[in-house]
Amino acid sequence: MGKKGKDKERRKRDRSAEVVAPPPRVSDRLRVPLGPVDLSAVSTAPGAGPTDREAAERAVAELAPRLAALQEQLFAHGRSGGTRRLLLVCQGMDTSGKGGVMEHVVGLMDPQGCDITSFKAPTPEELEHDFLWRIRRRVPEAGIVGVFDRSHYEDVLIARVRSLVPRATVGRRYGQINRFEKQLTDSGVSLVKVMLHISADEQKQRLLDRLDDPTKHWKYNPGDVDERARWADYQQAYELALGKCSTEHAPWYVVPADAKWYRNWAITSLLVEHLEAMDLQWPPADFDVAAERARVEAS
Amino acid sequence: MGKKGKDKERRKRDRSAEVVAPPPRVSDRLRVPLGPVDLSAVSTAPGAGPTDREAAERAVAELAPRLAALQEQLFAHGRSGGTRRLLLVCQGMDTSGKGGVMEHVVGLMDPQGCDITSFKAPTPEELEHDFLWRIRRRVPEAGIVGVFDRSHYEDVLIARVRSLVPRATVGRRYGQINRFEKQLTDSGVSLVKVMLHISADEQKQRLLDRLDDPTKHWKYNPGDVDERARWADYQQAYELALGKCSTEHAPWYVVPADAKWYRNWAITSLLVEHLEAMDLQWPPADFDVAAERARVEAS
Repeated sequence: MGKKGKDKERRKRDRSAEVVAPPPRVSDRLRVPLGPVDLSAVSTAPGAGPTDREAAERAVAELAPRLAALQEQLFAHGRSGGTRRLLLVCQGMDTSGKGGVMEHVVGLMDPQGCDITSFKAPTPEELEHDFLWRIRRRVPEAGIVGVFDRSHYEDVLIARVRSLVPRATVGRRYGQINRFEKQLTDSGVSLVKVMLHISADEQKQRLLDRLDDPTKHWKYNPGDVDERARWADYQQAYELALGKCSTEHAPWYVVPADAKWYRNWAITSLLVEHLEAMDLQWPPADFDVAAERARVEAS
Repeated sequence: MGKKGKDKERRKRDRSAEVVAPPPRVSDRLRVPLGPVDLSAVSTAPGAGPTDREAAERAVAELAPRLAALQEQLFAHGRSGGTRRLLLVCQGMDTSGKGGVMEHVVGLMDPQGCDITSFKAPTPEELEHDFLWRIRRRVPEAGIVGVFDRSHYEDVLIARVRSLVPRATVGRRYGQINRFEKQLTDSGVSLVKVMLHISADEQKQRLLDRLDDPTKHWKYNPGDVDERARWADYQQAYELALGKCSTEHAPWYVVPADAKWYRNWAITSLLVEHLEAMDLQWPPADFDVAAERARVEAS
């Protein structure tokens, strides 16, 4: 290896040292404890961590190169026969910021290594299958960071609130979800399930903002106000989903999301922590480096 | 509309005024003229435009908010019943920087609105269909910026150089491609076909760089040296493809790509120019804004 190569290798290895380490255990602080959940006891306002927008944006800018390097390492791992992947599941009420997470957090990574799926109301074809059918088809491939904007949890959220299926069917789904997610984690998926937790007042303000701004009218859907009228029912449905489906292998994280800058910092931190926990290495060469060097030089 | 809304609207509209306008007609300068092509007469070094890395990076940083706003407008258009979309086709020799374009140019846009397809050697299933079958399946939906990392052009490039099909079959494909691309543009697709043009010396240096840097070994493929041995054949195949398939409705652009910073600036500029040419507007509300405001206020 030439000096240039060694320097590059050291620079890549040192990326983690160049940035301020994320506050320890964001995952631990935001993880939903096992057992019943009371969302009304969880603040939607920024908690521990950066205390204002400027500090949060600085922290994200410092985490960004680390996140990008870790994601490239995961991608390289997938290209070299590895089986690990990450799946970020984003849930939250309308206007809670799922789109903002895509733009400002997922957008920090190389788009080649990310695969976003936005789940809408099921199509007729999807309804002919069990509720996990369309989900299984979108599980990320090896080395990829998959992102779900809404997910199989809609099948125990709106499905429960709107009685789209019998209550007993909803009741069976929690266990089905837990078994499905166990299969995922057993097969090398690191699951990061995030609920974007906003207050009803914050939602009202965001809906009004969309109405005030003609460049945002396309984002406004009158149906969102109908769902808003069921706020308490949705909070209860979330409490059940989080309580029954936050497991050792696939915990839920509740991210205070009234402040967009806090939300972005928290989820960036969760991704970095989960990728670091994979403890991946750069794949070794599966060819003779010196021989290849001679071939290229001679070409 | 409140004052806040008016301000926001003006800020969004003014994004174009805040940035230095791109040098006029990058598209015109890089477009392949109709007729035979001689790639040896086209420099792989930076041409008109920014003259060094720093100036290019500054120019890209100035274009980035404009590109993001235009892409959001295209996305909004697609969500509101519009049919326009953009398809960036990236072709080039190994190491020419297709991956870098994904990371540094496509990465400037909201990942929710981008759909990257990386075409590999066809699978057995794909080989059972005509060569455009797998391509048609990946044409972007309305409002989306699709990106092809390699494309249907491989079927007249490696297919010709490696005689994967009879020469007469290759010969028929140029016309099939032109008819296919005419269908695309007729259906609302803005096609941006880019050849990343590097020199053989630059490729040699990039292959050696990958060998020198253990964090890049996973990107090195000994087979690339075999393809490199056919350099002249590939250049000839590119000349035929560009000559026969650069049309009024779907021209080819040859981007000098020995300097990564110039390549990134040029392709960012091409995207901005093509999105601007769509002349999209923010979709008007399809609901009664005042009535919705009252509903939200009362909720």
